[in-house]
This record gives sequence, structure tokens and C-alpha cells, in this order.
Amino acid sequence: MKKNSHPDLETLMFLIAKLPGLGPKSARRIALYLLKNRDNIMNPLSGALDKVYQNVARCNICGNFKTNKIECNCSNKNNYEQICVVENVADMWALEGTNVYSGQYHILGGTLSAINGINPEDLLIGSLVSRIKANSVKEVILATSATIEGQTTAHYIKDSIKNLNVKVTKLAHGLPVGGEIEYLDDGTLFSAFKYRSSLNSD
Amino acid sequence: MKKNSHPDLETLMFLIAKLPGLGPKSARRIALYLLKNRDNIMNPLSGALDKVYQNVARCNICGNFKTNKIECNCSNKNNYEQICVVENVADMWALEGTNVYSGQYHILGGTLSAINGINPEDLLIGSLVSRIKANSVKEVILATSATIEGQTTAHYIKDSIKNLNVKVTKLAHGLPVGGEIEYLDDGTLFSAFKYRSSLNSD
Repeated sequence: MKKNSHPDLETLMFLIAKLPGLGPKSARRIALYLLKNRDNIMNPLSGALDKVYQNVARCNICGNFKTNKIECNCSNKNNYEQICVVENVADMWALEGTNVYSGQYHILGGTLSAINGINPEDLLIGSLVSRIKANSVKEVILATSATIEGQTTAHYIKDSIKNLNVKVTKLAHGLPVGGEIEYLDDGTLFSAFKYRSSLNSD
Repeated sequence: MKKNSHPDLETLMFLIAKLPGLGPKSARRIALYLLKNRDNIMNPLSGALDKVYQNVARCNICGNFKTNKIECNCSNKNNYEQICVVENVADMWALEGTNVYSGQYHILGGTLSAINGINPEDLLIGSLVSRIKANSVKEVILATSATIEGQTTAHYIKDSIKNLNVKVTKLAHGLPVGGEIEYLDDGTLFSAFKYRSSLNSD
């Protein structure tokens, strides 16, 4: 600890420095900023953290965040024709930003990964099966990442629900919008070529 | 607000995004990280913020942070031969890191600035004069930045204490260690030339 510092301040900086994307220098800058803005930022932030800690919990059914002890939106029986399966909350928010889909989401909480020891029972796959069975779901959209883990997870889910008489789709693979062919990787080009669409049908 | 989000979580992200160096995307990343690490980061961070808010205050005499309602280190009568005057706490910590000085510090809380309306009475200059008078201070080291505001402030302080029979020094100006002459600005080169030191005296 620095000689001319305060132990509580040191603890605060130590904790801030643990947050993703931050280090000791930005933690120090943030801590001093907080001390300068005691009443309009530091106090509300402490309250907000406390509130989220007390109130926000993960729903055991759909994986989204919900208010503790209150039923999650996913138990609302309307709008259950489609379920879009994503890896995490950030992915859901990214999809929401496109406004292309407004139905139910199902947040797995990660991907299958033998290396990191993440098995099917660590993800919300069982509850996905239950949700499909319990509701009149017509389509399951597998919106996992185009990584090996993402695709393995999608494949596993497809396998788990193959007997449920539900349409299963996955996101299209191909050129990203704005992508220049010269700079794309082989895998993307291969997919774009393989899944090319006919212009005659337009 | 996003449809599939939680109001408390939105508030938390809004507040995190206000911190220096962070924006909405990093705030989202940090909030999700906090939710993943509820008990080992989120809860302690909330507690640390609260503790700092309750306990840490600025000393009206030396300007450093001190524990609320407890006397600051600066009222300790030992080690009062030198006072090093800095603009802010970060500057003090930077100087401490060099281990070149271990005496008393005096934190002004900024620099004089006509444009930003910061006048002498907004800085802890009066209490610096009192500290010099009340203790057997032999040297006042003006360690303000080499900016116009920093140097104006140093000049003002020098003027305020000129009758106190105390040695006043300021940090040396010149080449930064590791600085290549070719890339240095005119002001630095001018200072380095003007304050050149004799090698004969070594």
C-alpha cells in the first residue's frame, strides 16, 4: 500500500482493477473521479450495485436476468411460436439491436467445451427441451456463434430436440455485410460459396 | 431501455458508462462480469464504494484523503522540514513511486485558471501558508506541472510565501529521461539548454 493513501480507497481501487478492460491505472483514475463526484456518481453507483445484487437473478428456465422472486417474462404464454437460442445475454442484446426478431429468447449461459469442462448439464439445454414441449413452439433458431464451440453446441441441441417435431434453423453463414472478399478468411468464403443463393428467384 | 433487460441492470450500466474511460459497451461488459461474479466482486465492490463514501474525506489542511473524523497524518508534528506542493493526489502518488522524497505533501486540489474560474481561494493555498508558519518548515518544493497553469500557480505560491523565510524550490525542467532531442518540443529544448549543468563540477 502507498504510504499516503487510505486503506478503504486502496481496497476500492483493487476491486475496480479486477473489472474486465481495466487495470491499476484506470482503476486509480476511476476512484479519484468517484471521490470527486461523491454524491452524483459514487453514492448512486454503490446503491445500484446493491440493488442489482439483491434484485437481479438468473431465470432457471430461459437464462435471462429477472427480478428475484418474481416470475420471469418467459412464463408468459403468449408469443411462443419461436425461440431464439443464444449463448449469453450480450448476444441477445446484439440481436435485439437489429430489430429482426422480437420473440422469445433462450440463453444457454455459454457453449459446450471439453477443454473448459463445460458439459450439457452446465448449460440450460434441459430447460430448452421442456420449454419446447410445454409450449406451441414452431421454430427453434440456433443463434450460437460461428466458432467451433458454438457450432458444436448448436449441433448438440439439434440432436436433443430432433424428435420434438419442431423446425430448427440456424443463422446464415457467408460474407459479412461490408466485407471485402480479398480480406475474408477461407472458412467464410467457403460458406459463402457453398450457400450461394440464386438471383433468378428474386 | 432494451425489452429483455432489467431496470436495475440498466441503471447500473448507465452509471458505469459515466466513469472516465468507459462507454456503453464497456459498461455492459463490466455489468455482465459483475453479475457473473456476484459474491466475489459485485458485493465487495458495493461495500468498498460504501465504505469509501462513508469514511474517506479530504483533509482541509493538507488536501490528502483521510479517515472521516480522525486527525490526518499532516497534524503529526514530525518530519516537517520539507513540504512538497502538488496539484492532485495522482501527482503525489506518482512522486511517491519514485522514492525520491518521503516528507510531507500538500495537495492543492488543482491549479489557478482564469478560464475555468479557479481562484486562489479555491485551492488550499491559505492552509499551506499556515502549515509553513506553524511548523519548522525549511523547504517548500513546488512540484506543479510544467504547464502554463501549473507554473502560474507555482509563481503565485512563491509570491504568497516570500516573506516566510523558507527556501522555495521547483522541479527541474529539461530533457525527460529517454527523450530523443530530435522529437522534443522547443520549450523543453530551450529549458534544457538554459538550465544546462556543468560536467566539471562532478
